[in-house]
Amino acid sequence: MATRVALGLDFGTESVRALLVDLRGREVGAATARYPHGQIIETLPGSREKLPPHYALQHPQDWIDSAAKAVRAALRAAKLSNETVIGIGVDFTSCTMLPALSDGTPLCLGEKFAREPLAWPKLWKHHGAQAQTDRINTIARERNEKFLARYGGTIGLEWFFPKMLETLEHAPRVFEAAEVWIEGGDWFVWQLVGGEAATLPRSTCQAGYKGMWSATEGYPSEDFLRAVHPKFGRVVIDKMPGRLLAPGVAAGGLTPAMAKKLGLRAGVPMSAAIIDAHAGVPGAGAAEPGTFVMVLGTSSCHMLNSTEERFVPGVAGIVRDGILPGMVGYETGQAAVGDAFDWLRRLCGQRDFSALSREAAALPPGAEGVLCLDWMNGCRTPLMDGSLTGAFTGLTLHHTPAHLYRALLEASACGVRWIVELLREHGVPVKKFVATGGLPHHNPLVVEVYADVLGSPIAVHPSKHGPALGAAILGALAAGAFASPTAAIRAMAAAKSAPVIKPNRRHRAAYDQLYREYRALAAHCARRTSLCHSERSGEPTISAFPLHPGKRSRPGIARGGADRQH
Amino acid sequence: MATRVALGLDFGTESVRALLVDLRGREVGAATARYPHGQIIETLPGSREKLPPHYALQHPQDWIDSAAKAVRAALRAAKLSNETVIGIGVDFTSCTMLPALSDGTPLCLGEKFAREPLAWPKLWKHHGAQAQTDRINTIARERNEKFLARYGGTIGLEWFFPKMLETLEHAPRVFEAAEVWIEGGDWFVWQLVGGEAATLPRSTCQAGYKGMWSATEGYPSEDFLRAVHPKFGRVVIDKMPGRLLAPGVAAGGLTPAMAKKLGLRAGVPMSAAIIDAHAGVPGAGAAEPGTFVMVLGTSSCHMLNSTEERFVPGVAGIVRDGILPGMVGYETGQAAVGDAFDWLRRLCGQRDFSALSREAAALPPGAEGVLCLDWMNGCRTPLMDGSLTGAFTGLTLHHTPAHLYRALLEASACGVRWIVELLREHGVPVKKFVATGGLPHHNPLVVEVYADVLGSPIAVHPSKHGPALGAAILGALAAGAFASPTAAIRAMAAAKSAPVIKPNRRHRAAYDQLYREYRALAAHCARRTSLCHSERSGEPTISAFPLHPGKRSRPGIARGGADRQH
Repeated sequence: MATRVALGLDFGTESVRALLVDLRGREVGAATARYPHGQIIETLPGSREKLPPHYALQHPQDWIDSAAKAVRAALRAAKLSNETVIGIGVDFTSCTMLPALSDGTPLCLGEKFAREPLAWPKLWKHHGAQAQTDRINTIARERNEKFLARYGGTIGLEWFFPKMLETLEHAPRVFEAAEVWIEGGDWFVWQLVGGEAATLPRSTCQAGYKGMWSATEGYPSEDFLRAVHPKFGRVVIDKMPGRLLAPGVAAGGLTPAMAKKLGLRAGVPMSAAIIDAHAGVPGAGAAEPGTFVMVLGTSSCHMLNSTEERFVPGVAGIVRDGILPGMVGYETGQAAVGDAFDWLRRLCGQRDFSALSREAAALPPGAEGVLCLDWMNGCRTPLMDGSLTGAFTGLTLHHTPAHLYRALLEASACGVRWIVELLREHGVPVKKFVATGGLPHHNPLVVEVYADVLGSPIAVHPSKHGPALGAAILGALAAGAFASPTAAIRAMAAAKSAPVIKPNRRHRAAYDQLYREYRALAAHCARRTSLCHSERSGEPTISAFPLHPGKRSRPGIARGGADRQH
Repeated sequence: MATRVALGLDFGTESVRALLVDLRGREVGAATARYPHGQIIETLPGSREKLPPHYALQHPQDWIDSAAKAVRAALRAAKLSNETVIGIGVDFTSCTMLPALSDGTPLCLGEKFAREPLAWPKLWKHHGAQAQTDRINTIARERNEKFLARYGGTIGLEWFFPKMLETLEHAPRVFEAAEVWIEGGDWFVWQLVGGEAATLPRSTCQAGYKGMWSATEGYPSEDFLRAVHPKFGRVVIDKMPGRLLAPGVAAGGLTPAMAKKLGLRAGVPMSAAIIDAHAGVPGAGAAEPGTFVMVLGTSSCHMLNSTEERFVPGVAGIVRDGILPGMVGYETGQAAVGDAFDWLRRLCGQRDFSALSREAAALPPGAEGVLCLDWMNGCRTPLMDGSLTGAFTGLTLHHTPAHLYRALLEASACGVRWIVELLREHGVPVKKFVATGGLPHHNPLVVEVYADVLGSPIAVHPSKHGPALGAAILGALAAGAFASPTAAIRAMAAAKSAPVIKPNRRHRAAYDQLYREYRALAAHCARRTSLCHSERSGEPTISAFPLHPGKRSRPGIARGGADRQH
């Protein structure tokens, strides 16, 4: 057989991408298919009743139908027969989750609950569980639950347990009818490989980053869950069956029925699922522990594999087997990156970034005195406080939009440096840097500034489909085509042509000084926000600094995977 | 005689305005004449040699010729004969000063020094004396000179003694040939009333605010001046003859020759001169002690008369008889007001203020979380540090240019409140507020925000020619037309129609909170700047806060009368 390819399926918010990659990393075919129902935000299918605000749902049949369409189109584009496909990997938005029966049927597709919004899959960005999240956090802190340490002290609004609890409290009949609560990515894999609910494949990535699970501790205890709600105590035991498998581990082979649906051969091995952003790590060629992968988009998600498991205060997700089998995955992030750049562009009345970038590039490090704090959407790592806000200082009458823009890029870079220093200070080695996502390709200045501020070279990974490529690599791994994740990643995502941006050593001292000023400004602004909150609410003053997780979270800020350019 | 009018001559940077006002305050005629030589910045008249940067000179004959032109035109416009003019007052930019012979001839008009730039009148904005200013400040601090307390601890770059010392060091022949060093306003009055150099009329306003003079201490001591430069010791005794007269006190009567030149009657009494900005105090109808007159323009100058002489740390000029006879004049200021508003407008790519003002007015107090520090051109009162810089904090992705603009207006208002609280804390009563200058008329929102933040009503004085009106009032006083300054001001500048902007009581608590946050941000930014300076220069850390005058000044920032809309 001449050609052997792996299939990566990348499930975004609006569409799914199918990518076919050969075992030397050549992308031989790709296609995208939009979900017929897209995001369900206004009304349920077949209904005119308005959904409450903050609701964001999806249709589970869309995932199957669109995947089938995309896979067939990708094979046609590659001019390959389905004989060539040796393995399948899946990355998925998370925490996108749904209630199902023990045979896998989603509750929303039955007559009984079709009109019940909380029976439908909740998309990652569904924000209906604020009160539940707050209570889970409060009780976890009161009980000093050990799992908090793995999440920087705060459970996110978009996670699995808050979304289950929301249904228990607002649609108890749906909660009771649910036999299986499951992540969308896991459900998709389960549908494709079949089998009993008791052994359904669950991803350690989704479970670890969104489900408060760890390899050593498991899920939160029955005691804790009962303290949250009397009917919540047995939810793990009764409604979350399955085996936990690391991404890249085989979950099973494609069933004949699903093979027919997708136009593939029956029995092709499938990997356990992975979160979309996390798939960017193998997708960016990050094979070794210590490679810090920056997925730069509207917000940024920075991921790192390590051999060490250390609890780093302020780091939001620390999961063994979370990204690749056998390694500890660290997830950190910045809440506003491309979003903040675009906000500043609009604030300054600029049509696009061309003048801003050209003029900012010509300015010296330090933007002639302007200092910025890039918290326009809160601070994710390390302060975990969505109520924090951004700032500019050092302003004089001679400063222009380009000065503010350069200062914002530098602030974003200082935010990365803070995260890197935090990891290193706590014994987690960071040795190499890779930038991926949409931003590095259309904004080279940002990578230059990052390299200068970090004082380290940054490789810009050329793949335009990093997560899909990562998923394909996991598919090849599940098929046993490589001896190890490292070998698979080196073979399929080495990116020999990746340009490396080197730091300018002459900027070193200026940026060391700037970084100290950034930290001082962060300290001031974190204190100010904390003080304001306590004065306004009458609570005692709580210092949100240094490194104490804030008490408040704001939708979409406190946690979550990277926003992707879906 | 039916009509009796006073003449106010208002000497700006580019032109002189003549205003005729009757004794009930009706402006009956006005005219402006530009100086034929304008500001002399590029080359001296009749020369092609480039002047050094920072030089700004004027031609003394322009003052006489343009005044004659403007007075004749104003009389024509008023359709009045010169019989009706009973008194003349003069306001002048300051410190604009020149060297002359003892008969009053400016050195620059003789053959010998016509080609010597430092023999020409130096305009207030001439910035050639930085090294001299620094040395004067250093030695004054080493010797702990008492006069420092009256100037917030810092002598300004634009003042009289630095400008003399610059000439001594850079053009010693000019310095030696000078028999009289004199302010432009005083020179003009002297030319008009004639007399010996020994009794020439000098204004206590110019001497007090720009010449380090006080009624009780006189000028700086011979000892101090000799410590500054061995040939500087006797400069007051040998080269600064004359009588010190408060504005409104008669300096003499018009000589026949000058009466002919100006088209007026000989013998008409003239007041001693006043600084242009300070003339705005009587011009705005501020008759009583305790009225805080805000002259709002590109920068702001706030003046107050009081019966009390208190040394208020950070207040830049405290002069008995400085503004009106018998009262102590306090001069304070903000370095960027209209300038900062315009900078923000340009930064945000706005064509004009219409959208900004409309949208900012619709926002609640506190600009939905945006906090600003208005130090884009340094901080004049109370920190006296031109190196300080501006800031915005509290920024989020939903903020627009209008949020930043409202925050800037609020910051400017907090800057005024700080000054007012500082005066009150040190026992100087502030009872009423009057806004004048160009800004209140074309930017009503700024006065509303000021009123809300101060929690006090603000009268907006309607005169478009405040300083010229003030000068005319001083002319009437010099003529003995009124029994007291209060009576003259009430009669001629009462502004019965002045609109009064009342504070909105519902905004009180929000603005009290905002003001506390402003002060906290000011404290942070003052510390940051101070730290940066010391780190960069290797000096020990100096806290510029609270209320310790900074060590550094920047051209045009540290001190000076208000910038006017010349």
